[in-house]
Amino acid sequence: MRRAIELAARGLGSTSPNPVVGCVVLDREGRTVGEGWHQRAGGPHAEVHALAEAGADAAGGTAVVTLEPCNHTGRTGPCAQALLEAGVARVVYAVPDPSPGAQGGARTLAAAGVDVEGGLLADEAAAGNVAWLTSVLHGRPYVTWKYAATLDGRTAAADGSSRWITSPESRADVHRLRAESDAVLVGSGTARADDPHLAVRKVPGAVQPLRVVVDTDAAVVRQGARVLDDAAPTLVAVADDAETTALQAALRTAQGTAQLVRLPRAGDGAPGLDLRALLGALHERGVRSVLVEGGATLAGAFVAAGLVDRVVGYLAPVLLGAGPQALGDAGISTLAQALRLTVNDTVRLGPDLRITAVCGAPRAAPAGGRPAQSDHPEQSEES
Amino acid sequence: MRRAIELAARGLGSTSPNPVVGCVVLDREGRTVGEGWHQRAGGPHAEVHALAEAGADAAGGTAVVTLEPCNHTGRTGPCAQALLEAGVARVVYAVPDPSPGAQGGARTLAAAGVDVEGGLLADEAAAGNVAWLTSVLHGRPYVTWKYAATLDGRTAAADGSSRWITSPESRADVHRLRAESDAVLVGSGTARADDPHLAVRKVPGAVQPLRVVVDTDAAVVRQGARVLDDAAPTLVAVADDAETTALQAALRTAQGTAQLVRLPRAGDGAPGLDLRALLGALHERGVRSVLVEGGATLAGAFVAAGLVDRVVGYLAPVLLGAGPQALGDAGISTLAQALRLTVNDTVRLGPDLRITAVCGAPRAAPAGGRPAQSDHPEQSEES
Repeated sequence: MRRAIELAARGLGSTSPNPVVGCVVLDREGRTVGEGWHQRAGGPHAEVHALAEAGADAAGGTAVVTLEPCNHTGRTGPCAQALLEAGVARVVYAVPDPSPGAQGGARTLAAAGVDVEGGLLADEAAAGNVAWLTSVLHGRPYVTWKYAATLDGRTAAADGSSRWITSPESRADVHRLRAESDAVLVGSGTARADDPHLAVRKVPGAVQPLRVVVDTDAAVVRQGARVLDDAAPTLVAVADDAETTALQAALRTAQGTAQLVRLPRAGDGAPGLDLRALLGALHERGVRSVLVEGGATLAGAFVAAGLVDRVVGYLAPVLLGAGPQALGDAGISTLAQALRLTVNDTVRLGPDLRITAVCGAPRAAPAGGRPAQSDHPEQSEES
Repeated sequence: MRRAIELAARGLGSTSPNPVVGCVVLDREGRTVGEGWHQRAGGPHAEVHALAEAGADAAGGTAVVTLEPCNHTGRTGPCAQALLEAGVARVVYAVPDPSPGAQGGARTLAAAGVDVEGGLLADEAAAGNVAWLTSVLHGRPYVTWKYAATLDGRTAAADGSSRWITSPESRADVHRLRAESDAVLVGSGTARADDPHLAVRKVPGAVQPLRVVVDTDAAVVRQGARVLDDAAPTLVAVADDAETTALQAALRTAQGTAQLVRLPRAGDGAPGLDLRALLGALHERGVRSVLVEGGATLAGAFVAAGLVDRVVGYLAPVLLGAGPQALGDAGISTLAQALRLTVNDTVRLGPDLRITAVCGAPRAAPAGGRPAQSDHPEQSEES
């Protein structure tokens, strides 16, 4: 199963709106005779790839799959049926399929006399599929907020200079993170200040994410903006009452696919768009994972809305003592309201550190929204 | 030698103004027959402890020492002489003794026919003695700035609440850090806001550090302040022109030893005291390592003066989006002026991370002041 999970991970970033799935087929004697993973939406499922490689050796053997084999006929036939036709005697899977319509693969197999076992390394497999599981369970993409800052929490110096706080290794890693995401988001402040490109570079075989600019008042994206080149598709999200003449003119001159979506403004007089509506619009477009790249205002709005599932921080061992912060107002005024996360990974990248933290305690559970407010033990320890 | 370095580390926090030193004595056959470390200033040196344990077995054997054996008669006799009297045939040491007056131990031993070798694991041994080496080379104590903050760099929420951002494990570790330091420093803002106690608790055998409050205008430390209890000695540093009637009255009621020192104000109209003068005054009092615990203003002044040798950050996986910063103005306005450090340690402490970074590239070299400005490669990589 661990091998199947490894195989599944190869599909990260290219299977949406489908899950990543890996499959290993063993023959009667337990020898590996086929491996496969789901490579792209619309392409064959992992089981089909693995069965094709196994050929006649699959008969009487075992299929090990990271996700319960599907039972429905989508763009490809149901995998449960393919496994039966190959004569597999046993199916071991990790995570049950929660999606309506696809469920029941295990039942179908068992009814046909196959020995079926679920739950093996389920937490580990679910962690690899967290974006897709979140999207199925919550009807919105999985949201990662990425930031890069100094040890003292600054994203730029007082004069705005920020190239480069982090190392080339960290910046290359950001491209890997983009490649694993279906969409990359920035707010209007970042779009205006940095004119970012947001496409993936130097990641072999990467599927480009959808570039999304939240330009509430349609005031920033203009002709010549770098997101309007043909490196990746682009979506500009504006308020439903925004005046878009200039923006539409810019989109008409775009070299690549550039579209506009109108969404409601945030309620209660808050600035920006309704972020749930934004995520809903992205979900409808098949986006299952979103990387929020900034700036501080947009990130603060995501935290305030309880819509951050994971935080990836690139920390450079640099001190500035002044300059802008990574995270803007998130509606948190006192410590008891703080968003508490769980660190699940720290990695050195050149001179820097990458810290990955997730919302909610269990690492493998599909994270959803903000966890219970501060379960931190209050202690009377003195300083 | 690695064992000797381990032994030396046991003295951290209790040997100042002396170095930490460890010694292992081997007999003719290379068996360990004596171990020792310098335990406290005025007490026997490491070699003397190890030779006492070895007794007659030292004759013809080898002494392995982390620092070149001393050649002078201080409060204890010269170790070079003690090694000769014990009949040791070979001496291996790690770091040459740079202090005037103590040098020459190796020469004395070699002249007497002992086989002497220096430099074994010198970097590692120097790292353990970095505070003392810094003080010898620069005439000032080694300065560590410690902070505790959220992932987004906040030390408190917008309403000032900060108990507790970090975990009990992190807070316990701060006491260990205090115990390894000769002095613990806070500025007047922290003294006013938190009335901190600053003593070491729950570290068995710890020698209490000198508690130092930088109260430039003698306006904060008053009767009943927690630093005036008898848990540890206290020094209040004020400007030489400060009006101290109320402060002196408070010091007279102190339960423990509480003194006042007058120092010049910072030059160029900067707030606070001349920090080099402050460190000089501490050095004169035998302080070889200082832990700067806050607040942001004092830490910024230390960074601005190029007087931070090491940074220890306790990072809690918490997001606030608002609230005060760990580091205040350090006179840095653009990224090229940033203080760049080298991470040499990251440790998980409960849910938190502790990051240790030092100034200057080489880990083991006695750090001194600010490294060369930004040797970071400028790259034209796009975002």
